[in-house]
Formats: sequence, structure tokens, C-alpha cells
Amino acid sequence: QIRDLCAELHPADLADLIGLLNRDERRDLVALLGSLLTADVLSELDEGIRDDVLDQLDPKAVAAAISELDTDDAVYLLEDLDPEVQQEILKEVAPEDRTAVEQGLQYPEGSAGRLMQRELIAVPSYWTVGQVIDYMRETPDLPDDFYELIVVDPAYKPVGTVALSDLLRSRRAVIIEDIADTDVETIAVETDQEDVAYRFEQYGLVSAPVVDESGRLVGVIMVDDVVDIIAEEADEDIKRLGGVGDEDLSDTVVATTRYRFPWLVVNLATALLASWVISWFEGSIAQIVALAVLMPIVASMGGNAGTQSLTVAVRAIATKELTSLNSARVIWRETAVGLLNGVLFAVLMGAVAGFWFDSVPLGLVMAAAMVINMLAAGLAGVLIPVALDRLKIDPAVASSVFVTTVTDVVGFFAFLGLAALVLL
Amino acid sequence: QIRDLCAELHPADLADLIGLLNRDERRDLVALLGSLLTADVLSELDEGIRDDVLDQLDPKAVAAAISELDTDDAVYLLEDLDPEVQQEILKEVAPEDRTAVEQGLQYPEGSAGRLMQRELIAVPSYWTVGQVIDYMRETPDLPDDFYELIVVDPAYKPVGTVALSDLLRSRRAVIIEDIADTDVETIAVETDQEDVAYRFEQYGLVSAPVVDESGRLVGVIMVDDVVDIIAEEADEDIKRLGGVGDEDLSDTVVATTRYRFPWLVVNLATALLASWVISWFEGSIAQIVALAVLMPIVASMGGNAGTQSLTVAVRAIATKELTSLNSARVIWRETAVGLLNGVLFAVLMGAVAGFWFDSVPLGLVMAAAMVINMLAAGLAGVLIPVALDRLKIDPAVASSVFVTTVTDVVGFFAFLGLAALVLL
Ligand SMILES: [Mg+2]
Ligand SMILES: [Mg+2]
Ligand SMILES: [Mg+2]
Ligand SMILES: [Mg+2]
Ligand SMILES: [Mg+2]
Ligand SMILES: [Mg+2]
Ligand SMILES: [Mg+2]
Ligand SMILES: [Mg+2]
Ligand SMILES: [Mg+2]
Ligand SMILES: [Mg+2]
Ligand SMILES: [Mg+2]
Ligand SMILES: [Mg+2]
Ligand SMILES: [Mg+2]
Repeated sequence: QIRDLCAELHPADLADLIGLLNRDERRDLVALLGSLLTADVLSELDEGIRDDVLDQLDPKAVAAAISELDTDDAVYLLEDLDPEVQQEILKEVAPEDRTAVEQGLQYPEGSAGRLMQRELIAVPSYWTVGQVIDYMRETPDLPDDFYELIVVDPAYKPVGTVALSDLLRSRRAVIIEDIADTDVETIAVETDQEDVAYRFEQYGLVSAPVVDESGRLVGVIMVDDVVDIIAEEADEDIKRLGGVGDEDLSDTVVATTRYRFPWLVVNLATALLASWVISWFEGSIAQIVALAVLMPIVASMGGNAGTQSLTVAVRAIATKELTSLNSARVIWRETAVGLLNGVLFAVLMGAVAGFWFDSVPLGLVMAAAMVINMLAAGLAGVLIPVALDRLKIDPAVASSVFVTTVTDVVGFFAFLGLAALVLL
Repeated sequence: QIRDLCAELHPADLADLIGLLNRDERRDLVALLGSLLTADVLSELDEGIRDDVLDQLDPKAVAAAISELDTDDAVYLLEDLDPEVQQEILKEVAPEDRTAVEQGLQYPEGSAGRLMQRELIAVPSYWTVGQVIDYMRETPDLPDDFYELIVVDPAYKPVGTVALSDLLRSRRAVIIEDIADTDVETIAVETDQEDVAYRFEQYGLVSAPVVDESGRLVGVIMVDDVVDIIAEEADEDIKRLGGVGDEDLSDTVVATTRYRFPWLVVNLATALLASWVISWFEGSIAQIVALAVLMPIVASMGGNAGTQSLTVAVRAIATKELTSLNSARVIWRETAVGLLNGVLFAVLMGAVAGFWFDSVPLGLVMAAAMVINMLAAGLAGVLIPVALDRLKIDPAVASSVFVTTVTDVVGFFAFLGLAALVLL
């Protein structure tokens, strides 16, 4: 019965189901599935479990899947296996497919070369529409899915693309050159996948030709794979902002702890720095314990305001809405927002603190510290990501620790320092 | 010269350039551009500046753009204008286009109905490939871009799709029915755009037919628009996690402050709660000031560990990797990770605190509080998003405030409470 149920699932759904199971259940299901574990299902498996499932299969079965898949998916299956295992599988693959996969594996992870498939249709510009249609009707081994033809010159350099819809609209006698879109977005093989995604998004592409260093056509990137990349890059940014690395839900407890530990160590260092600032004022706190009660509020409000402004800045940098053209304006805006929110919360918290501890001076100290820290938060929240970006460091990964360090240190120092000055 | 430079830009790039300028520069550029401000450029403008640019244009010019665009883009232009302005523009539009746009505006924002275009090609299943090709060659008013034909029954219900590549591969005499993919992913008109994006991503779609309540074909959603939605939804999640709403970089200082204020108020309430917990232990702090120095470390480490585990949980829920099938396992894993990290940092911080203040009991109290709070962080980080998701509340928007409340309260209470018990 389980096999029957699985047989009805879309390959992508079956792959997800396998991913939801724990290790033992997964092994049992994989053994049970047998031939239902098609090449398409394998290519949809999440990275976290892919190698584990492949391990369980016969190299011959994996080789059969490799032959069946487009090169991008074939490369995805093999990319993280041990070189020996890769070789064992590849020696069962027909020479032509093997070469294509081996070349794909040469390109660095995350590059256009890894993302592209070699299966494509290239036609010379002097063909007619009729010739192209006849060619496609007669060639049995066309790619499974394609939306555009790539027009190439004699040196196999792309000079244009023809959307299939334009081909179908044209009479048989029309020359390809006359209907080709010559404003072609070619992508260099070493381009980062994030840039590839940006171009598809910005220009609404469905596929794009990939060229090598000499400008020759070597492959094509399809939109369905770019959709996965966009989701993956967004995931990466969210996780980096949250201080988690490249972890998967299927990772073990020890692996997960190891991923998260370094970030917590960094945070511990900044927390100790903040504590050290507090320790300068031990005397003041011993005299007025209310300071210890109120100081976390100043730090926490600054931390949250800083996180807000850094979130906006990091996103705007990622979507190329924040560039050197407008950074001065955005910095000014965040400063103003910080100041305005600072004044609002100064009034609010000044009043609360003053009434709670029945002390007008304490309320005033609170209010002043609030303005200072919210202003610092707004400024740090935008300056730090912009500076990191200029230094070619991903602002998503490092901004938040710097920003909260600033807001903690400034918050404690401003509040306790002013209290020491004014109240003692 | 500026006009010449702009004329060479892709519409999407020109639209971005307009978005980067400040209000006055933008007005000047729009006035200067004149006819270069094509319908395509208008449809690519960011939401934050779109209405402002349209305001500056003659309703007749906007009407001309509406007639030229696909319905999805036409609806995007008009959706946020005042009803009177909408009417003023629409009365200049030809009746057929006007009806299409008016119907599009009826569907709620963020639904498949808003996202779809009405421009599509539907063919009956009994036509031959030759008939379809002749039809496409003879019809002047075909949609600009399409990748699939939709096969409909006599009631205009979609029964299949034919990829253009399959059409081109087939001989003229072949019946459409024989090459149609009948496993068609139809989308109901009221479907949320997030679900639409999920289906495109999961099944690698390039376009999908949209049907009304009675199952009749009303439009088609294209992948380039879904790519924008995926980016938009990721943006939304990142911003919600960072405590910022639907703000744009082009918003004014006052508007931005208004967006961010509510979140900061919520945070202030939780910070006050944490302060209130601290105030229970004023007596202990007055006796041992070291407690005030060390207590923010416990809260901060808990907050960061909690953020890590909630980030992973929120993402896994959004990508449907965390479901009721595996939630028990994930909860258990986060608990174990929290405990393991807790023990590691207990040793580390216990030693630091013990040496810093030269007190073994204080080090032990620190260590115990660290274990308790990291464990609470791991648990809260996964339980809160899962619970919010069950309650149909977006975990991205509300999780982090609950989690940091837990880690602050538990952190201060555990540390100060244990200190009061052990050290006094
Ligand atoms: Mg999947
Ligand atoms: Mg092959
Ligand atoms: Mg777009
Ligand atoms: Mg592919
Ligand atoms: Mg990346
Ligand atoms: Mg990135
Ligand atoms: Mg844009
Ligand atoms: Mg029209
Ligand atoms: Mg909208
Ligand atoms: Mg996919
Ligand atoms: Mg569209
Ligand atoms: Mg949404
Ligand atoms: Mg969402």
C-alpha cells in the first residue's frame, strides 16, 4: 500500500516525504521504494539527506539516474560524494554524459557553471523557421524542456535568442535572424548564483545562455533552478541574520551544536564587554539599586531599534535598493528615525522610571540615555551593514553582533554614566 | 544626454534608477523622460514610488500604458490609486481592456486573481498541431510571452497543457489531446500568492492556469511574476523577524517611525516585565553588586540561543520542512542542542564568573543559570513558532518577542533566584 501511495506522488513531494522521516524510517522507505525512486525523485532530495540515500543505492542504479538527468541535476547528485564513489558511479555512465558531468563538477559550487544544463538547442542565424521546426521534429534526443532557442554564430558564440512563441508565430520561410532577440543576456560561467538570480529576477528571464571565457556557448540556465536559488539565498540571509549557519533540520544534535557554538562564543565576548562596562559603575549600582533594575531596558530598546534599522539596511543592500547613490540619504533617514523614536520613548520611559522609583532626576537620566541609545542604534544599524558591504563582507552574517554590541555598550554606559554624574 | 543614457537602459533598470532618486530629482527625471517612460518602465516601478510617479502623469498617458500592458501589470499600476483617479484613467481605456482590469481589481491583494494575466492561449483538445500553428500564425493579437497552451473542454475548463517545445516536436497531423499533459496544476483564483509561489517552486512550473469557483479558465500566472513574489515573501519574512513592517526605503521619516513604533512598544512591555523580575531581587543585588554585572550575560546568551532555534524553526515552517509529522523530533533536537550548548557555556561562564569575582559559589550559580536558560531558549525557540503556526499566526511576525521574553525572564529569575538562595 505504501508503494501505491508513493507512486501517485509528484517526484518533488515524494522527495520531501523522504526528507521528513527520521534516519531509520528513511532507510526502510528507500528500500521499499525500489524502482519508484526515480532519477527525478533523487534530484529533488534535500542536500542534507541526499548523500545518505545515495549511499544506500547500488552505484549502477545511481549511474542510470545520472544518464537520465540533465547535467545540472546529475552534478547535484554527485557533488558532495567522495571522489572514489563518484568515480565508481561515473565509470558506469556513457562517455558523453560522463564528460558533461565531470566538466560540471569542475566549476565551483554556487557558480553559473554548476547551475547550467548542457542540454540546449542552438541554431545558426541563417536557418529558416521551417528548417528549425523540421530539425526539432526529426531529432529524437532534444532536451526535455526548453523555452528559447539560442542563435549562435560560426564560432558557437550566442548572438541572439528566439522564444518558442515567436517561432510559432512566424511563417516557415522567415529567417531566424529576423525574429531573434539580439539583446541577449549571456551569463559568464563563473558568475555567482546570487548574481544569476538577480538577473533573472530583474529582467524576467525564463532561460539564459552561459558562455565560457572565450565567449563560446557551454550551457543554459533554466528558471526553475533559479527559483530554487532565490529561495536558497533568502534562506541563507535569514539564517545568517539569526546567527545560524548552513544547518539542516536533518543534522544531528552534535552537528547542530557545533554549527551554533561559534556564534554564541562571539556573542559571549560582546556580552562580557557589556558586563565590563557595567562593572565600572559597581559603586553607583550599590548605592542606587534601581539602576540595575532599569539598565536592561535601555540596552534592550536600543538592541531592538538597531535590529530594525539593520534589517532594513541589509535587505536594501541585498536587493540593490541601497547603493552609494542613496546611502547618504538612507543614513540620514535612519538617524532621524532613531532620534524621533528616541524622543518618544524617552518621554514614555522617563515617566515610567520617574514614577516607579519616585525620582524626577532618575526619570531624566533614563530619558536622556534612551535618546542617546536609540540614536546610536539607528546610526549603527545602517552604518555597520554599509561599511561591511564596502569591505566585501556579507552584511547579513556580521551586522547584528556589531550593532547589538554598540547598543549594549552605549546603552549601559550612557545610562550608568549619566546616573553617576547626576544622581551621586 | 540624460535622455540618451536612459533610452539605453532596460525598463527594469530605468525603473530602479527612478526609485533611487529623492523626491525632487525623481520629479525632474520623470518630466524629462516623457515618452521614454514606457508602459514597461511604469509596471516595474516599486510600490513605494509608483503612485507618486503616476500622479505626475496625464491620465491619458496612464490609460495608454494600461491598454498596452498585460492585465496583471495594468492592475498593479492602478491598485492603490483613489477610486476616482482609477475611474478617470479607466474611462480612457477600451471597454475590453477596462473590463479585464476592473475584474482584476476585484480580487483581493495577494491572491492568484491579482497575479494572473488574462492574456493566454486556450485550444480545444480535438485540434491538430497544424491547426494550432496556423492559428498562431494568423492571429495578430497573441500574448507577448507564453510557454504553454492550455487545453480546454467545451465548458472552458482546463483539461491539460501543451508545452510549446512539445508542440514543436510534433508533426502537423498529431491531435493536441495526444501530446497534452493532463496532470495539470490548476490554481484557484482566491489562492494566496504564497501558496502559488510554493507550487511553482515545488513543481518547477513556468506557467499555470487559474480557474474560478466553477472551474472555468480565467487567466494564467507566469513564472516571472512568481519570481517577484518569492523575493517579496522572503523579504516580508526577513522584515517580520527583524520587527519591521511593510516599509520602503522611500518612506518618509515620520512614516518609518510610525511603522517601527508599535514593535518597540511591544518590546518595551516585555523589557518592563523583565525589569520587574529583577526588582524582586533588589535586596540581593544591593548586597552583591556582581549580580548586576553578570545578569545581562545570562539573558543575552539565552536570547541569542533562542533566536538561533527560532530562526531555524520559522524557516522550516515556511518551507514546509517542519510539519506535524516531524515536530516532536525537532522539538527534542532543539532541547538537546539547548542542553548541550548550555553545559558548554555553563563551564565557560562559570569559570569566568568564579575567577572574575573570586567566588566559587557565584561561578556555580552562573553555571546553573546558564544551563537552565539555554535549555529554556532551545525549547521556547521551537515551541513558540510551532504553536503560533497551529494558531494560524505567522510565526515570523510574533515569535521573536515571545522567545526573548522567555529568555529574559527565565534568565534573570534563574540567576538572581539561585543567587538569593545559595549566596545569601
Ligand atoms: Mg523539496
Ligand atoms: Mg543525459
Ligand atoms: Mg519582474
Ligand atoms: Mg534543471
Ligand atoms: Mg550566497
Ligand atoms: Mg546573500
Ligand atoms: Mg525593480
Ligand atoms: Mg491590452
Ligand atoms: Mg501590492
Ligand atoms: Mg525545483
Ligand atoms: Mg506578468
Ligand atoms: Mg505573505
Ligand atoms: Mg510569509
